[in-house]
Amino acid sequence: MTDISMIEAARERIGTQAVRTPLLSSPFLDEIAGRKLFVKAECLQRTGSFKFRGGWSAVSGLPAEVRAKGVIAFSSGNHAQGVALAASLHGVPAVIIMPMDAPKIKIDNTRAYGAEVVLYDRANEDRDAIGDRISRERGLTLIRPYDEPLVIAGQGTVGLEIAEQGAELGIDSAEILVPCGGGGLTSGISLALAAKAPNYKVRTSEPERFDDVARSLASGKIERNATSSGSICDAIVTPQPGNITFPIMVGLCGKGIAVTEEEALRAMVLAFNRLKIVVEPGGAVALAAALFHGDELESETVIAVASGGNVDPEVMTGALSRFG
Amino acid sequence: MTDISMIEAARERIGTQAVRTPLLSSPFLDEIAGRKLFVKAECLQRTGSFKFRGGWSAVSGLPAEVRAKGVIAFSSGNHAQGVALAASLHGVPAVIIMPMDAPKIKIDNTRAYGAEVVLYDRANEDRDAIGDRISRERGLTLIRPYDEPLVIAGQGTVGLEIAEQGAELGIDSAEILVPCGGGGLTSGISLALAAKAPNYKVRTSEPERFDDVARSLASGKIERNATSSGSICDAIVTPQPGNITFPIMVGLCGKGIAVTEEEALRAMVLAFNRLKIVVEPGGAVALAAALFHGDELESETVIAVASGGNVDPEVMTGALSRFG
Repeated sequence: MTDISMIEAARERIGTQAVRTPLLSSPFLDEIAGRKLFVKAECLQRTGSFKFRGGWSAVSGLPAEVRAKGVIAFSSGNHAQGVALAASLHGVPAVIIMPMDAPKIKIDNTRAYGAEVVLYDRANEDRDAIGDRISRERGLTLIRPYDEPLVIAGQGTVGLEIAEQGAELGIDSAEILVPCGGGGLTSGISLALAAKAPNYKVRTSEPERFDDVARSLASGKIERNATSSGSICDAIVTPQPGNITFPIMVGLCGKGIAVTEEEALRAMVLAFNRLKIVVEPGGAVALAAALFHGDELESETVIAVASGGNVDPEVMTGALSRFG
Repeated sequence: MTDISMIEAARERIGTQAVRTPLLSSPFLDEIAGRKLFVKAECLQRTGSFKFRGGWSAVSGLPAEVRAKGVIAFSSGNHAQGVALAASLHGVPAVIIMPMDAPKIKIDNTRAYGAEVVLYDRANEDRDAIGDRISRERGLTLIRPYDEPLVIAGQGTVGLEIAEQGAELGIDSAEILVPCGGGGLTSGISLALAAKAPNYKVRTSEPERFDDVARSLASGKIERNATSSGSICDAIVTPQPGNITFPIMVGLCGKGIAVTEEEALRAMVLAFNRLKIVVEPGGAVALAAALFHGDELESETVIAVASGGNVDPEVMTGALSRFG
């Protein structure tokens, strides 16, 4: 079970491998939000998302002889890239299982970060069976994207930085808005802040129609999404909150906030123009909540995590022309 | 005359007001550059460029009773915004003199940062005469964009950070590529590194046809550009190196590098895709030099400063569609 000492140990192992991403702000955004707003720009993290932290934490946390055999992950997105680069920097093999119809750029990027990509046919092949077989044959360790204590510990280092950077800026209390998929980032940040900045309250943010976490927090038990495809915020859409992450979130998080796709795109454009960062739609939902759902917020100061920046240029270009 | 103690004093005065911008990297960029490449992402600085540091340093460095009367600057760009926000945060007035035909967005932004904008007609009015009159009437202090020791000291805080961040990453020696206009940023960084990281050698980067600094460094005396308009890298185009900054650069900088406009645009696109930052054309010339002029570089490790991100979305969109 992840706790603050595991998060601090993850930070020790990460050292200077991860970027200490800055807290950014703009008077233009404060004005829209109607409060003081900071953005933790985790889109600037290596591989373009916070997932590198969890990947590094998990790979570095394995016993050396286990790690040497390599790791495996199922992902077509940010987790794949995070694990691939973390393994490559450790000099150990990584196998990433991806659907054959994943965007070519994501497959190419994952390979370029040093991983062996194994493609499968979503319609006719069993992903888990393929993964199990390869893992057994080669002795690879599976790195789960969020329901894995070492991964949660790695994502929790974002929370340690928020606590420190907030203190440097004299922020005594705040709501911390976090884009939430399976809950690895949210639960890690929540654990870190509960220990280091208990006046910082975590709130989840999700796209409408895919707000399984908000609904689960409201009902007190795990709720599923009706569907898990069809969102432009694909990077943070999961069928349901994690079995390990959800109890942590229930204990520590406030009410969840759901934003529209248009709000996420508008937040991307404002982040581009005012903060000079590239944020993907799923990574922008917390900023969207801060900017456009002020009536659901309580504190004078809000820190929104921009969790990833791996957006197709066409998506950004389209958003800039619609909302720029 | 700016020296290391003035730069350190500027940092004391700046405190947490400026963002400690991160050093970013990507294996994709390393591969193109053929060496280890880091980017000092100063486009993430408040107001979207390093100019906020110089503005803050200058405003905060004035005697309190002088500062209280206010400051004035001539600029249609990044310096205007940096001075405007610095003055506003100090609670003192700022007058910014801008040409009537400056882009509306720049005028609006400068006003939104709290300044009073005075427009003049380039064809029929004398900018300096207007500025002199207003300054005298109101007792305003002129903040020059680069030929001003306190401004150079503020920009030098970028160099202090590069020295510290480079040491954290174990970089013993490197070439530091800096986009160069009048030379405030370049001379400030050069002074800081000469004191704190003498194995870090500063190299200037400019657009072709506007490489007055490179030519001046080569000849040992101040050379002018044939023209100072018509570059997409407008933010860093000046008629000639500064009279205060040039002697500093002559003493401390290596040979200058000139890049094409297309190289600057390609660098912008790579920064967008690989580092998730928004860089303006002029701010991208050092990254362009690192990526595309490797034959003019000597060291295994290069740190390129991305000096600003105030680009029109249309320019970025155009670059993404041409080179993405």
